[in-house]
Amino acid sequence: MPPLRTALLQSSGRVGSVDDNLAALDQAAARAAAAGARLLVCPELFLTGYAIGDTVPALAQAADGPAAREVAGICERHGLAVHYGYPERAGDAVFNAAQLIGPDGTPLANYRKTHLFGGFEEKWFTPGELPVVQAELDGVRIGLLICYDVEFPENVRAHALAGTELLLVPTALMHPFPFVAEAVVPVRAFESQLYIAYANRVGKEGEFDFTGLSCLAGPDGTALARAGDGDELLVADADPGLLAASRAANPYLRDRLPALYGSLV
Amino acid sequence: MPPLRTALLQSSGRVGSVDDNLAALDQAAARAAAAGARLLVCPELFLTGYAIGDTVPALAQAADGPAAREVAGICERHGLAVHYGYPERAGDAVFNAAQLIGPDGTPLANYRKTHLFGGFEEKWFTPGELPVVQAELDGVRIGLLICYDVEFPENVRAHALAGTELLLVPTALMHPFPFVAEAVVPVRAFESQLYIAYANRVGKEGEFDFTGLSCLAGPDGTALARAGDGDELLVADADPGLLAASRAANPYLRDRLPALYGSLV
Repeated sequence: MPPLRTALLQSSGRVGSVDDNLAALDQAAARAAAAGARLLVCPELFLTGYAIGDTVPALAQAADGPAAREVAGICERHGLAVHYGYPERAGDAVFNAAQLIGPDGTPLANYRKTHLFGGFEEKWFTPGELPVVQAELDGVRIGLLICYDVEFPENVRAHALAGTELLLVPTALMHPFPFVAEAVVPVRAFESQLYIAYANRVGKEGEFDFTGLSCLAGPDGTALARAGDGDELLVADADPGLLAASRAANPYLRDRLPALYGSLV
Repeated sequence: MPPLRTALLQSSGRVGSVDDNLAALDQAAARAAAAGARLLVCPELFLTGYAIGDTVPALAQAADGPAAREVAGICERHGLAVHYGYPERAGDAVFNAAQLIGPDGTPLANYRKTHLFGGFEEKWFTPGELPVVQAELDGVRIGLLICYDVEFPENVRAHALAGTELLLVPTALMHPFPFVAEAVVPVRAFESQLYIAYANRVGKEGEFDFTGLSCLAGPDGTALARAGDGDELLVADADPGLLAASRAANPYLRDRLPALYGSLV
């Protein structure tokens, strides 16, 4: 299985303007494709911005709404998969969601954040109910989480046990929590033996000040690529062959003793 | 509740000589007590050495055997609790164990390692069956794990859910795994919001080359004290007041969604 070249867009786009953010996504997809990437991962709520307050309901779209069709066109035009965060409208409910669309424009998977963070999210979003959502891309098993989800080792472990090799995590990590990007995410990749693509927002947005520090973390606990605190496009490879070797050398998944973990559920 | 001043002995003692290691423990206890410590944590299998091969059965002692009585005397003499790793004889079984003895010489708790590491341990030791063993010291809830156990987030989570505030982890961490001491242990302290006293061996011993890097990690993910790669006595405070404030600011234990974690057990 060849490595899956993965691009991470670290950017906050333009808050409140879906059109501007689709244009920025189109440009990033062109650059990612030129660098050989087959997958581009965007931050949490990239389509609309994060600090959109009481416009959440108005800006929310269905998973197969007009923005999804625009993103599908970007995928087809540049021949790569795109994973983007957006507020998802489903009947009366709005989810903090992220959707993966394949290189041919086909929707591959849609994930609704289960672990909402803080008062803003708890006010406007309904929590998702599915802990593990996966898709297949170029033979690699992709898993989906969003931001706060990845800070709970249980969520990443559930993915590893379900076979996820590359976990995509759109995020909106803010100060004072750079420790999460710098330390928690690489440790998650090591302890559960998988790759994690962690794509963050940057700069100030309303009451929030995002850290940047996006990374692609490998199963050895290193950041194969690491962003600073400005707009950036990272490109690095997730290599299933290296992952298999790393799992053999670090047999955490084999050495678990589930009979002892009853108090966690 | 006042802070619990905690000392960590980073040393490999003298492999195979229980008498020498008890003498080293007595000296370390004197220094720790002089620094105001109420607790001294020693490495894994400190009583006997780690690379003791086929002498494991001969060197193993009962939890209330002669070495335990010697350690109790050390505790009484210096007025502090001691936690030490040793091979425990219990009928036909030998466990990789660690025992906490109180400042008055009373045994407080004995833990048998559940997650054995590698061929040497799997050959000579029977795995323990109790995931959470605790004790109370100066009003602080103490929990016990050993080495490889702490690398599994499930084990630390089980302690946090059971109320552990300070987790004692005698260890024998070897190269090429310094990442565990440097990154995994502080992340465990942060993600489950507790203190971790991680006391390691140093230098070469048979086929093993231990990393040192002992630390007392706090719930903010920092190492309050961190050793290098030589013999060292660390002293730092585990503060229940700071822990309570940290748990309020980082509500991981409250925000968990156990109904979603069924695949872990």
